[in-house]
Amino acid sequence: MNPKVVFYSVGKLTKFLGALMGIPCVLSLVYREPDFFPLAIAATVTLLSGYLIERLCSRAKDEEIRHREAFAIVSLGWAIVALFGSIPFLLAGTFSSFIDAYFESMSGFTTTGATVLTNIESQPHGILFWRSFTQWLGGMGIIVLGIAVLPKLTVGGMQLLAAESPGPSPERLKPRIAETAKIMWGIYLLFSFSEVVLLKLVGLSLFDSVIHMFSTMPTGGFSSHTSNIGFFDQAKVETIITCFMFLAGGNFALYYYFLKGNPRRLFRDSEFRFYGFVVIAAIILVTLNLWGGTYKSVWSSFRYAAFQVVSINTTTGFTTQDFDLWPPLSRGILLLLMFIGGCAGSTGGAMKNVRILILLKKGYQELVRLVRPRAVIPVKLGDRPVEEAVIAGITGFFILYILLFLVSSLILMKLGVDMISSVAATAATIGNVGPGLGLVGASRNYAFLPPVAKGILSLNMLLGRLEIYTVLVLLLPATWRK
Amino acid sequence: MNPKVVFYSVGKLTKFLGALMGIPCVLSLVYREPDFFPLAIAATVTLLSGYLIERLCSRAKDEEIRHREAFAIVSLGWAIVALFGSIPFLLAGTFSSFIDAYFESMSGFTTTGATVLTNIESQPHGILFWRSFTQWLGGMGIIVLGIAVLPKLTVGGMQLLAAESPGPSPERLKPRIAETAKIMWGIYLLFSFSEVVLLKLVGLSLFDSVIHMFSTMPTGGFSSHTSNIGFFDQAKVETIITCFMFLAGGNFALYYYFLKGNPRRLFRDSEFRFYGFVVIAAIILVTLNLWGGTYKSVWSSFRYAAFQVVSINTTTGFTTQDFDLWPPLSRGILLLLMFIGGCAGSTGGAMKNVRILILLKKGYQELVRLVRPRAVIPVKLGDRPVEEAVIAGITGFFILYILLFLVSSLILMKLGVDMISSVAATAATIGNVGPGLGLVGASRNYAFLPPVAKGILSLNMLLGRLEIYTVLVLLLPATWRK
Repeated sequence: MNPKVVFYSVGKLTKFLGALMGIPCVLSLVYREPDFFPLAIAATVTLLSGYLIERLCSRAKDEEIRHREAFAIVSLGWAIVALFGSIPFLLAGTFSSFIDAYFESMSGFTTTGATVLTNIESQPHGILFWRSFTQWLGGMGIIVLGIAVLPKLTVGGMQLLAAESPGPSPERLKPRIAETAKIMWGIYLLFSFSEVVLLKLVGLSLFDSVIHMFSTMPTGGFSSHTSNIGFFDQAKVETIITCFMFLAGGNFALYYYFLKGNPRRLFRDSEFRFYGFVVIAAIILVTLNLWGGTYKSVWSSFRYAAFQVVSINTTTGFTTQDFDLWPPLSRGILLLLMFIGGCAGSTGGAMKNVRILILLKKGYQELVRLVRPRAVIPVKLGDRPVEEAVIAGITGFFILYILLFLVSSLILMKLGVDMISSVAATAATIGNVGPGLGLVGASRNYAFLPPVAKGILSLNMLLGRLEIYTVLVLLLPATWRK
Repeated sequence: MNPKVVFYSVGKLTKFLGALMGIPCVLSLVYREPDFFPLAIAATVTLLSGYLIERLCSRAKDEEIRHREAFAIVSLGWAIVALFGSIPFLLAGTFSSFIDAYFESMSGFTTTGATVLTNIESQPHGILFWRSFTQWLGGMGIIVLGIAVLPKLTVGGMQLLAAESPGPSPERLKPRIAETAKIMWGIYLLFSFSEVVLLKLVGLSLFDSVIHMFSTMPTGGFSSHTSNIGFFDQAKVETIITCFMFLAGGNFALYYYFLKGNPRRLFRDSEFRFYGFVVIAAIILVTLNLWGGTYKSVWSSFRYAAFQVVSINTTTGFTTQDFDLWPPLSRGILLLLMFIGGCAGSTGGAMKNVRILILLKKGYQELVRLVRPRAVIPVKLGDRPVEEAVIAGITGFFILYILLFLVSSLILMKLGVDMISSVAATAATIGNVGPGLGLVGASRNYAFLPPVAKGILSLNMLLGRLEIYTVLVLLLPATWRK
């Protein structure tokens, strides 16, 4: 491990973050609100710290970044960005405790959207903007991570994205990583801009449109209203947001081909079809479960079911209704969706559809092998067989995910939180969803939890967002050996 | 598939079951109770049916039993034995509905111990004996299955038991399966006899001693008392039962070596050590969680924790306290233990310790592989590397287990059962544990559930007991092709 190389990159990242804090500063000037000074001080501190760290490690500028340094840059980078990102909240008095500010900041940068903010409506615009903006920046980070870093590092079978995609040519769109990232960011910007325009057209204020786009595109979930999307109570708004949530949960590389005039590639993609199937099946089941009991009309049932299913499955975590009051089956399905999440190469979190799909195929393959022990039956994705090493990576990821889920759930239970709330809070943070069930359900938030729990859930968000492996590998002695 | 071969074996098994029904018949004569005629009629019907089925398929007597026929014999055999085993309950009026009688019988033969019997104390001795005896017979069946059938069929990595055991020589104790089974049954009988003697010595009636041995050795859980083992409220009784439960959850092949004067083999076995570690760790955590709050003294906390942890982890399901009133962490740990279960080659159910151990090692291996991508790091059990095919089998098993768990839980939720009860009822039936949490918790039973739920839970018990694969494989078209 070469720490200087790591800190050089982290310093650059911090400097960049400080510069971006200028945007909410300008906003607070426009609105003439008292959060200007907190934001300006935070921006200056962050900028200077980043500059200092970069300067101190400038000799490592041209040194090689190996796999282990890449892991450290990503993990430490996200943790430190969340740290500096919490300064505005602390200086503006948004939160009185450090852990609350850090939780909110981490929740933003990991695009989770779990909140400990209880008086959202009374916050100044600059702070609300910064809170939501952290998600959008986190989403940009995820795109680079998913396209450029994870496949190279073969994290938990994520090389799939690079090599195992359907069709003859590899998914790496252009040879150089930087160019690929730019294309993906272009699509991200295009979708972001389109959503703001559409939300503005159906009557939202520009501020609300931007704030909610900042939550939709990175599948975050923060809102400027305590009652979240339920505040607007407009089917039009919900439809637009549902469509963009669904898009944000899909593989951005496929959209590139779509926009280039090759839509078949999108619709023939195994993962995208599975993703669509899961969403549609869940919407039908939840609609039928709600119809007659919870809501009288089939239309209302469908409206709330569709929004909530897409919101949870893409790991956005927006809410229109308190789904914690829904019957057991609907809540059970939503809890299950918290584990599935978006597609590889999307801004969505959790396990990802492609991994679930391959695991299901693996289970079926092992079953068939019993009857035909001598037959070679490869697990296929589209037309191409999936390598055994990839399946092994996904298996390892699945095991670590379940293990992290169990340990974190038990710790919350140890702190006296009831079983359902513990399990749901864990699933909702590892999966970067946001709201859970019970005490952390749709109409509540994470504020009541003890500081230890907030710390653990912040760690869950980081681990979940970085595909677990990326962080855990730093705990291995082998990573630190020369 | 050759159905005649299958039915010939099933017929023989049924005939044998009919003969065994004679034992409770004799008991009802001794007690001069009215359940003599129901039992005698059931015995005659079962005996004659078995004889007829065998006779009709007698031409298949010497035909080859291939893998697919073996699967069918085991699955169909267990389902049909449970069917005939329910006749005494129906004729004696123990239950008024067929599904209740079948559930109770299936729960016995699969050594689950989940009950729908609400008025246990008012039942005649013959019926109570038969109810508990089904578990003990099921335990004998499991021993044959685990030693002779599963390893041969490489079900979900269970060939481990045959080849991957520590030490130089294979675990197959004697070359011929029949002889191995006899040795295992000998150990089962020896433990059974010892437990009856010890329970009798501490003051239980002979009937109670036998009834509870019938539940301990096969890790069943039925009791002749509604308040289960809590009825006796004696630390001595609990200690004896705890020891025998722990023994029943261990690999019987290792006891053979122990009794032959090779105790090191037992204590150096990776799975046995992991099994011991899980039990001790869970006892410590639950004791600390109960101490001070639920029970004032550390002794009471330890006493109830130790009994309940061993009971649930071995999938016996005996209870002394209503653990549903315990704090979230304790209940969470018990729920988790329902998935782990006993060792391979024991009478315990659920996933088995060896599978969990290998999955954990696989997760760690994939983590290390990230830092040292070129290094060959095999997953080892004891001194020997575990074959990739075995790991693949275990992965497939794990996936199917989780899938079955999710589907069954969601169906129960669909029927309106709350989330915790649905999840726990499913875990407790697939894992062949018995009591769950909530509505199916320690102080309650499964009687209130709708018939559909009882049917599904019966199927869970069968699937869980037969390592899922054995039953599911019968649903594949390839199994039925000529």
